[in-house]
Amino acid sequence: MNQSIINYNSGKDEYKNWIVSETEFNVKYQKKCEAIFCLGNGYLGIRSATEESYLGQLRDTFISGTFNKFGDNEVTELPNAADMIAIDIYVDGELFSLEKGIVSNYERTLNMKTGELKRYFTWTNKSGKTFNFLFKRFVSFHNLHLFATKVEITLVGCDANIEIYSGINGQVTNSGSQHFLEGEKRIFDNRYIQMLQKTTESNITFVHNTVHNLKVDEKEDIPTYRFEMDRRKVGINYNSSVLSNQTVYFEKISNIYTTRDKDMEGMSIKEIKDISLKNIKHSRSVGYDALKNVGCKEWQKNWDSIDIKIDSDDDYNQLAVRFAQYHMLIMTPKHDNRCGIGAKGLSGEGYKGHSFWDTEIFILPFFTYTMPEIAKSLLEYRYNMLEGAHIKAKENGYRGAMYPWESAWIKDGEVTPVWGGADIVTGESTKIWSGFIEQHITSDIAFAVWQYYQITGDEEFMNEYGYEILFDTAIFWASRLEWDKDKNEYHINDVVGPDEFQEHVNNDAFTNYMAQWCMEKAVDYYKILKENNSRVFVRLNNPEYSGLNLDKEIDVLRDKTNKIYLQLPNKDGLIPQDDTYLSKKNIDLTKYKNQKNVGLISKDYNPKQRNKIQVSKQASVVMLVYLLEYKFNNKIKQSNFDYYEPKTLHDSSLSLAIHSILASDVDKPDFAYKLFRKATEIDLGTNMKTSDPGIHAASFGGIWQAVICGFCGVRMVQGKLRINPKLPEQINSITFPLLWKGNKLEIKVTNNKL
Amino acid sequence: MNQSIINYNSGKDEYKNWIVSETEFNVKYQKKCEAIFCLGNGYLGIRSATEESYLGQLRDTFISGTFNKFGDNEVTELPNAADMIAIDIYVDGELFSLEKGIVSNYERTLNMKTGELKRYFTWTNKSGKTFNFLFKRFVSFHNLHLFATKVEITLVGCDANIEIYSGINGQVTNSGSQHFLEGEKRIFDNRYIQMLQKTTESNITFVHNTVHNLKVDEKEDIPTYRFEMDRRKVGINYNSSVLSNQTVYFEKISNIYTTRDKDMEGMSIKEIKDISLKNIKHSRSVGYDALKNVGCKEWQKNWDSIDIKIDSDDDYNQLAVRFAQYHMLIMTPKHDNRCGIGAKGLSGEGYKGHSFWDTEIFILPFFTYTMPEIAKSLLEYRYNMLEGAHIKAKENGYRGAMYPWESAWIKDGEVTPVWGGADIVTGESTKIWSGFIEQHITSDIAFAVWQYYQITGDEEFMNEYGYEILFDTAIFWASRLEWDKDKNEYHINDVVGPDEFQEHVNNDAFTNYMAQWCMEKAVDYYKILKENNSRVFVRLNNPEYSGLNLDKEIDVLRDKTNKIYLQLPNKDGLIPQDDTYLSKKNIDLTKYKNQKNVGLISKDYNPKQRNKIQVSKQASVVMLVYLLEYKFNNKIKQSNFDYYEPKTLHDSSLSLAIHSILASDVDKPDFAYKLFRKATEIDLGTNMKTSDPGIHAASFGGIWQAVICGFCGVRMVQGKLRINPKLPEQINSITFPLLWKGNKLEIKVTNNKL
Repeated sequence: MNQSIINYNSGKDEYKNWIVSETEFNVKYQKKCEAIFCLGNGYLGIRSATEESYLGQLRDTFISGTFNKFGDNEVTELPNAADMIAIDIYVDGELFSLEKGIVSNYERTLNMKTGELKRYFTWTNKSGKTFNFLFKRFVSFHNLHLFATKVEITLVGCDANIEIYSGINGQVTNSGSQHFLEGEKRIFDNRYIQMLQKTTESNITFVHNTVHNLKVDEKEDIPTYRFEMDRRKVGINYNSSVLSNQTVYFEKISNIYTTRDKDMEGMSIKEIKDISLKNIKHSRSVGYDALKNVGCKEWQKNWDSIDIKIDSDDDYNQLAVRFAQYHMLIMTPKHDNRCGIGAKGLSGEGYKGHSFWDTEIFILPFFTYTMPEIAKSLLEYRYNMLEGAHIKAKENGYRGAMYPWESAWIKDGEVTPVWGGADIVTGESTKIWSGFIEQHITSDIAFAVWQYYQITGDEEFMNEYGYEILFDTAIFWASRLEWDKDKNEYHINDVVGPDEFQEHVNNDAFTNYMAQWCMEKAVDYYKILKENNSRVFVRLNNPEYSGLNLDKEIDVLRDKTNKIYLQLPNKDGLIPQDDTYLSKKNIDLTKYKNQKNVGLISKDYNPKQRNKIQVSKQASVVMLVYLLEYKFNNKIKQSNFDYYEPKTLHDSSLSLAIHSILASDVDKPDFAYKLFRKATEIDLGTNMKTSDPGIHAASFGGIWQAVICGFCGVRMVQGKLRINPKLPEQINSITFPLLWKGNKLEIKVTNNKL
Repeated sequence: MNQSIINYNSGKDEYKNWIVSETEFNVKYQKKCEAIFCLGNGYLGIRSATEESYLGQLRDTFISGTFNKFGDNEVTELPNAADMIAIDIYVDGELFSLEKGIVSNYERTLNMKTGELKRYFTWTNKSGKTFNFLFKRFVSFHNLHLFATKVEITLVGCDANIEIYSGINGQVTNSGSQHFLEGEKRIFDNRYIQMLQKTTESNITFVHNTVHNLKVDEKEDIPTYRFEMDRRKVGINYNSSVLSNQTVYFEKISNIYTTRDKDMEGMSIKEIKDISLKNIKHSRSVGYDALKNVGCKEWQKNWDSIDIKIDSDDDYNQLAVRFAQYHMLIMTPKHDNRCGIGAKGLSGEGYKGHSFWDTEIFILPFFTYTMPEIAKSLLEYRYNMLEGAHIKAKENGYRGAMYPWESAWIKDGEVTPVWGGADIVTGESTKIWSGFIEQHITSDIAFAVWQYYQITGDEEFMNEYGYEILFDTAIFWASRLEWDKDKNEYHINDVVGPDEFQEHVNNDAFTNYMAQWCMEKAVDYYKILKENNSRVFVRLNNPEYSGLNLDKEIDVLRDKTNKIYLQLPNKDGLIPQDDTYLSKKNIDLTKYKNQKNVGLISKDYNPKQRNKIQVSKQASVVMLVYLLEYKFNNKIKQSNFDYYEPKTLHDSSLSLAIHSILASDVDKPDFAYKLFRKATEIDLGTNMKTSDPGIHAASFGGIWQAVICGFCGVRMVQGKLRINPKLPEQINSITFPLLWKGNKLEIKVTNNKL
């Protein structure tokens, strides 16, 4: 792992602490920067693969919500749209590649303030000719459909023939699965390239357009060109002889529209083709630089609402928080309440674009506290998904809303894949149990609804969507509980809790407490609505409208809320993670705690063997005492943190940030800082392999929470705002914006003072 | 185009004129050798992509007859099976590639006598460490399912860490179309890797197995290894520290079985899995060298039946003919009469594995004259396809057997794609008319049946299959003819003849003459069978058995045979190619006749424009006077050759060899030789781009005919063998085996004498 490849201090002046850069190109590590330098706008996400091609590249372009299923034995996933980023450059007939010739002054920079990616270097080819290259690229934050590239090639004291091939390439797949039927290909006016393709199962038509502008110095060049139309592929090949010290300016301006787009609703394919073509013509006339500037303004508006200023002894802290926020901005489909956030955002094929509890528990607080309209849209996505949640409940023999562990289309129901990597003992694929028995997500969503409500005071949202989710999820839990005759209490058996190393456990503490919380909230709001909000109550109580029958459910809910078994803290304040965890054997975990890459234990133990050890993947009881902190005193927090953290390998990116918050809570600021730094390094660190299949969306939400809820001690407790800062000594002050019940606060925390 | 990259004189002693080699590796030209060095056995065909990966490689593995259709808007094609050729080699952590470091003593050789591909070179990496590499590979000619690779890496005066990743990769596609549903993946005994996948539409399950043997010097090495199981992919990573001057021997032995295999008929997937696993275990115990030797014996048997000895001033001639025969042997599915020969054999995705008239008119004579059992199997394929031919006739409003222009599954009917490359004028895809109106293939198949019969005397085949094809195709033609009231004759309007530059022509000479021939033969055999073979006649005359009703058809057939319009030779002996060809404008074709790559005219004229010029893609009237030579005297042959050849751009690989034969016939031996050489250069020449999508199967058949039917003057004329040699002066003698009515002849032609 080459530490020097990522540089955190590239920006100067107005871009100080806004720029992350790569200082050396290494084909081995290219996937890292493809993901962490990903560009997007919530509608469109494009991995930052280089224009020229290398083996092992992942050229992914995703459009939020356009899920498709390749075959009946696969789960639905975000399809990899046709690639429009690739540009093949031939210098005197040889394909340009950084793996050939001599490269100097290499730098690739992601400017998070403007959303622009730049790459420049000097390249001397085998014949000794030297060229300065500059590549620029952005995905528009203003026009969701638009993205563009500008290439500048300056010939340093030599003449050369420059040949450029560029177009639209629909031969790309999702690791071999092709989601598209090939559609019409066409070149208009010898210049505008259009290609259609349609998803095989969900029948979404994608309309791709691209166009080029080629200038040599200031003059528009009319080079020799020829069309190339292959299978799933169309492009133009330009050929131009360029003189010494001239510069070739090559712009590629592209757009994508789909029949699923909210702004295209009701339009025919023909109309979308025409609109997209009209727009690409307009964009071409505007040109790269002006298009970029419009997008920058939109970026500035966004940063104005969210930017956190960290004064610390290491600028990296400032950069890392912006980096987390940058990614949350580009991955979130704020334009469309039928889409969720993928576990890898739009930055890779990992987790197939599916939404997990990552959204509600990790990412949502950032939006709820700073951009509540976006938080609302994300919760509406869950509301829209109730039908799928009912389907899942029914399939499992339950009632109410049982949210899928992984979600895609709102009507899909469960979409978790069933099979994972090789079992090191049997040589067979490992079964993934989450889709079957990891059930706490249903409470997590209810919790996020309530949290949103408490922080924003958005009564309208609750009336329209929120209460219904609270009741519907509570009804699920009531139906889920299992009566234990002997103990005279309700159990939840055979689940996976947040700690996914422990499969098939009974009475997972997190699961049971959150289920109880969920039912309790329903009982409370039943009373509140009935007494104070009869319009909404009557509607929700009417099975014909909501499918609910509150009056009929309430007694059972109340009874079960009281009789559900909860793992109580023992005399040392330790909450057993489940019925058996504390009785499992202990092994020396030093090797795994010191691992350089996650997953080391899985190379020594298969799931069955691991299941017999007191070892955790991530925060579980620790998560519980964070979310429901009003139920637990500080001593309990402390005991559980001290017991479970040493047993936790942080093999999930959902772990470190939460532990950092708890370390702040239990007055271990040094440890909190260390865990925070480690959390930021999941994607931004020097380990060049962690982000290959995409960035870690939940971790970015966790990083924001570690700063705001951890260091700054911001917490909504039982509907009230509490700020109890615990700045580590490395941080002098943090200034941050916060919206509380609609009021914009600008808060500065210095030396643990407000 | 680098002339020196292909070497024709690599073999010595027993391998003299048996070896073609590549003397330099250039990533730009890799597709050429992938195709021309293709390995196969008629069941299995594997492009010779290198073990290590490069951009632009086409890693294709095909199993004859396993057609699948990706979507309703695509045509069925041979799916690209999972890749088992790739082997990633890391030296001290760096991925080995010939594009890095220094390569010397490079040579890659295809030994056509043994079917083995070898590659060796010395490689010095960036750190200055030197290694000798030797790669060997074969596809078994003995066990159709088996193929194997052996890699030897010798460390020259250095120690190194050698890491090898190898397995089964199902992420490959046909230019982006994925034909397989991912199936079970499994590693048995920490060693045997098995992966299943199933075609999406035709539901054929492929069972892939692979296993490795790793030795360092003579000792079996137990290196560190780990399983890697990804999406559509499974493999093992081996890691071994190797000392100076030691050699790593790495064998990879693989097999493929499918549920469509003739030798697996009636077996369950479970049974096939078990058999294939049992066989891979056995193969592993036998090892690369012994497995190869068994295959070699089978090769020798084949060569004994077909080898032609050419004594000439240039050994290339000998090599080129063997090269043509080598490819015809590896591409032909002799094991299965439900499969045809693809236009690119099994060497590439071009033409999607479909069969054209290339088989019957170009390739079949080779088999008919030397291995008639194979010719018979190929004709049975056409017999088995009658149902599809009836479907096509019905869809087009005709009766009888209308053979598809392109064929795949026997029941598919027409599978020609509808859209081709970009129209240079409109920017739209060009429509491919062949599937709609290129109809002469129906006569071509009937002709091949008759030719087979005349050469072999195989009466049994005729009784069982041949006569039925003759009648059924004649009935099609009778239904196809259009009555011209004014002229009182039958026409065939709106067709494409063999010359595909001329679309939508009326009364194409080749089409009409061959249709007439076909009906005439039916009329003749009606009489012959009725009088001499009543058992067969009664059966064929019974509509319940054959679907034919000969007694009812015969009068119409006779009438139409007499009244079909044929383009008669004019006073100069010139046969008009169609109703309008001779009245089209003439342009200066010099530029196109001198083209270095085919297709130059299509860059200047779109199909509509080209259609107005007297310019031909390939032999049409020239083909007619070759096939039906008994109808035309020498003067007519001569006139037409002299008129049409200068107008023919040989833009089809079906053109040169036929013109060479005709040049021999009309006593232009120099020109015949020149055209023969050009024909051999289509694949074997120094143009490094011609074979990218696969070799030219028909051309190989044409090369054999140019030698045997052209230079040696062998011809079946009206059922009699005629040998009228016309050796060009560059060739001293040709010795060749020939089967005539079951008698094996060994013929030597010297200085135009037998």
